[in-house]
Amino acid sequence: MSEISRRDILRAGAIGTALVTANAVASPLDGERMLPAELDKAAFAKALDELRAIVGKEWVFADEESTASYRKSEIPDPDGKHISSGAVAPASVEEVQAILKVANKYKLPMWPVSTGKNMGYGLATPASSGQMILDLKRMNRIIEVDAELGTALVEPGVTYRDLRDYLDEHKLNFWIDVPTVGPIVSPLSNTLERGVGYTPYGDHFFMQCGMEVVLADGTLVKTGMGSVKNSTTWQAFKWGYGPYLDGIFTQSNFGVVTKMGMWLMPAPPVYKPFMVRHANSDDVAKITDTIRPFRMNNLIPNGVLIMGAAYQLAMFNRRSDIWDKPGAIPDSVVQAEAKKHGLGMWNTYFALYGTEEIIAAIEPIIRGAFEASGGEVLTEKEMTGNPWFEHHKTLMRGGLSLEEIGIVRWRGPTGGMVAFAPVAPAKGPETIGQTALAKEILAKYGFDYAPAYAVGGRELHHIIFLMFDKGDPAEERKANDCVNEMIVRFGEKGWASYRTGVGTMDLVAKQYGQANRDLNARIKHALDPNHIIAPGKSGVV
Amino acid sequence: MSEISRRDILRAGAIGTALVTANAVASPLDGERMLPAELDKAAFAKALDELRAIVGKEWVFADEESTASYRKSEIPDPDGKHISSGAVAPASVEEVQAILKVANKYKLPMWPVSTGKNMGYGLATPASSGQMILDLKRMNRIIEVDAELGTALVEPGVTYRDLRDYLDEHKLNFWIDVPTVGPIVSPLSNTLERGVGYTPYGDHFFMQCGMEVVLADGTLVKTGMGSVKNSTTWQAFKWGYGPYLDGIFTQSNFGVVTKMGMWLMPAPPVYKPFMVRHANSDDVAKITDTIRPFRMNNLIPNGVLIMGAAYQLAMFNRRSDIWDKPGAIPDSVVQAEAKKHGLGMWNTYFALYGTEEIIAAIEPIIRGAFEASGGEVLTEKEMTGNPWFEHHKTLMRGGLSLEEIGIVRWRGPTGGMVAFAPVAPAKGPETIGQTALAKEILAKYGFDYAPAYAVGGRELHHIIFLMFDKGDPAEERKANDCVNEMIVRFGEKGWASYRTGVGTMDLVAKQYGQANRDLNARIKHALDPNHIIAPGKSGVV
Repeated sequence: MSEISRRDILRAGAIGTALVTANAVASPLDGERMLPAELDKAAFAKALDELRAIVGKEWVFADEESTASYRKSEIPDPDGKHISSGAVAPASVEEVQAILKVANKYKLPMWPVSTGKNMGYGLATPASSGQMILDLKRMNRIIEVDAELGTALVEPGVTYRDLRDYLDEHKLNFWIDVPTVGPIVSPLSNTLERGVGYTPYGDHFFMQCGMEVVLADGTLVKTGMGSVKNSTTWQAFKWGYGPYLDGIFTQSNFGVVTKMGMWLMPAPPVYKPFMVRHANSDDVAKITDTIRPFRMNNLIPNGVLIMGAAYQLAMFNRRSDIWDKPGAIPDSVVQAEAKKHGLGMWNTYFALYGTEEIIAAIEPIIRGAFEASGGEVLTEKEMTGNPWFEHHKTLMRGGLSLEEIGIVRWRGPTGGMVAFAPVAPAKGPETIGQTALAKEILAKYGFDYAPAYAVGGRELHHIIFLMFDKGDPAEERKANDCVNEMIVRFGEKGWASYRTGVGTMDLVAKQYGQANRDLNARIKHALDPNHIIAPGKSGVV
Repeated sequence: MSEISRRDILRAGAIGTALVTANAVASPLDGERMLPAELDKAAFAKALDELRAIVGKEWVFADEESTASYRKSEIPDPDGKHISSGAVAPASVEEVQAILKVANKYKLPMWPVSTGKNMGYGLATPASSGQMILDLKRMNRIIEVDAELGTALVEPGVTYRDLRDYLDEHKLNFWIDVPTVGPIVSPLSNTLERGVGYTPYGDHFFMQCGMEVVLADGTLVKTGMGSVKNSTTWQAFKWGYGPYLDGIFTQSNFGVVTKMGMWLMPAPPVYKPFMVRHANSDDVAKITDTIRPFRMNNLIPNGVLIMGAAYQLAMFNRRSDIWDKPGAIPDSVVQAEAKKHGLGMWNTYFALYGTEEIIAAIEPIIRGAFEASGGEVLTEKEMTGNPWFEHHKTLMRGGLSLEEIGIVRWRGPTGGMVAFAPVAPAKGPETIGQTALAKEILAKYGFDYAPAYAVGGRELHHIIFLMFDKGDPAEERKANDCVNEMIVRFGEKGWASYRTGVGTMDLVAKQYGQANRDLNARIKHALDPNHIIAPGKSGVV
């Protein structure tokens, strides 16, 4: 922290407490749960009583059994640094406000989750032990869908499944855009995490419009047009007037978002999914350079996935079906196995949307470019029934699927998987460098390289799923070391993550520089002087 | 301000000074310039000396003659509330940092401008008198254009003309997206104001990627990926990691933006501009309902303008050419005059971009819908040579034109024009209500209704240009009263402005509610404790 801003913050007040919250070691509560360092058991018990008075005793979870589901984590946590003290589940905005009052009184930090399915990043577990889970699942109303404008206003506990069902039930001809494992995920929280999907509405934060936020002191703020009396524009116009604030509540701990507006895609008359098959690992550079111009001129309008075969095989197989030796699976084995299933080493999925005539006008241009890159361009004609093609066909029309959950159990029935997602410009040479570096580091630890590249526009997210057996403590520690090394060494080359798990939030924040951290710290302290909302989220204390 | 946040802010420190800055009456300096209330002439003279030591004496402007250009304003200011004390023009980021140090020392507020062409909103004049203009025009480098990614990194003083010339000179086949009067305007400042243009890249803030910002204490922050060491992704990926901050520096006084990344549109092989002519004032509802689905499904990819004939006539005529009586021009007169020039009462401009085949596939769908709405769909075949068609044909391919400046002189050679721009959902009935209300209020003051509707997506901006004669003090006061009444009465119906002139920033901010204002005030105070950057901007002190 620079001298100037540290001074400013110290002058402002309670930063001492806050730094303690983040750095201090939590103390055990009952073996399975942890207490914030500043709180003793008696104070915690009193806080629980006050929380029970707000939400009713059945909605405060503070024993080993009732908190078990909140302690589940699929990512490595070898030293138990992400263990909550319990959970509280409010039913309304007023209850959220009352809970934050108690949190301020007792300096009991609250980690908000919507449905707690942040897969690859820690599910519902907090950035530091002792925080209480503020579980918003009971706030699950679809408040409004505007059938003319194609907009929705939802609460945190609404899932993509809920929204899909609502649209079907009301015969509203809109598509939604879902992340993988969409059915059980909350659109609100996926958007706040800046997650992506695979229709033309794939950049969820781009397609978000208006929020309601509870600040740490209980103040209720509506962003954009939401605070204008009698406004009918809250879900229609994103930017509002004056500083545009929605962004500071994403990947953030500056407030608790209790409502969010989002845009829905009108269902197109015709939808045509494509797969392009490339045979070799190095082809990813040519694929990237082929896609980039089509994303820039929007001839390909959706978020394109370049799926690595190893990732795809892991969806529907256990590792032992394919390879029984230690060390990373050789490319040749992946390649051979993939071929059996009609897959290349890279399989690129995109789609066209419109009328028959529009698609017929666009298809030859894209087809020609992909063929020139050495790819085989395939459609339903050739691929119907192929489970991977069907999976992406579903995703690219905003359909719901849980099939990708399978990869978590690649190494063993206990499961174990952590996502590492560095970003780069969408340029071929960047992919060659990234793939080589990922393979080198993963192989050093004996893990398989199971990648996808998501080309959002001018940038690509390299999504590397590190699959390990969480039932094996030694392997869990290796997975932890491996993901840390990937973050550090990719970071040295300028490839920082767009999102990360609760165990590595601070590590990634460092890569974004001290000035950035100080700025976040100043805003955090201005809005949450007791630092009770999710300290450590994105490395912001 | 709520009790809680007022208490927090007071606890934090120097708010007293800041409130004085905003509310106190500035004192005259030499008749034409004003001094901030807290400063006496001797202190101001010392501040000027320190500023001269930073930028050289030729770049500090502090006498009647050299500051004349900064005092120009086309909007009403009947009581002289927007008169700066002078101007300082740094050549580098380091000089901006040094200037802010002096500003903090003397509590001399600085109002940043890029090229000072904020037409309809006050040009380079500040929200309150006595502020010094921080004129960034000398920082005018195009730092980088990435020919593969189609991105640019520019400084504040770069104009759209500069950028166009650079692309032409380097034979880079990209389009830019310009607001009206684009040649003399800065892309950086237009984007910070959340201005719009008329190609598919028309939402400038949407197409912005990465900023460099100097905070009030001199801290230099790069947003998004810009602060990652060795990153090549600063202009490729918007969101970065952790809270997304760029938005808080738009329509804002939280920092001085010194560099900005932006996306460039690949030039399409074929471009086809359209005009749809509708005969009657009420047709705007049908037009809006026809456009909305095409903006939602992106068959019309650009920012559509529904131009009112009165606005269009004012571009190339003086009022006395058409009507010589007091009171608003009757619709029948506008309609008759428009007809002479091949215009209807509403003339809607949009375009298609792509290949011949793609455009041929889309055109019949749109043509059919507009014809069903009672419009005549016209293209270059019928309209080539029509000055209004040629103007919009230029705008919709990001071409440069100064033709709209003509409207400023509608009422007289001195000029005088203020823009009022309320937003609404893109639904027909909203336009009927807005048009009726605007006509009623304007007629009450004897002004003409010269409108356009810009349909950005799911929302529309109603752009009402109030044209008056600034050479007539009584008319200037009437114009001021009229725009204030429009803001208040539209606001009562929930139609608040997306942007407003320096004279009405506080009035509009009130419509966005107290919780929103308090939140902005808390962030402002955390980042700029002496409130020296543009106090009053967007109503944020």
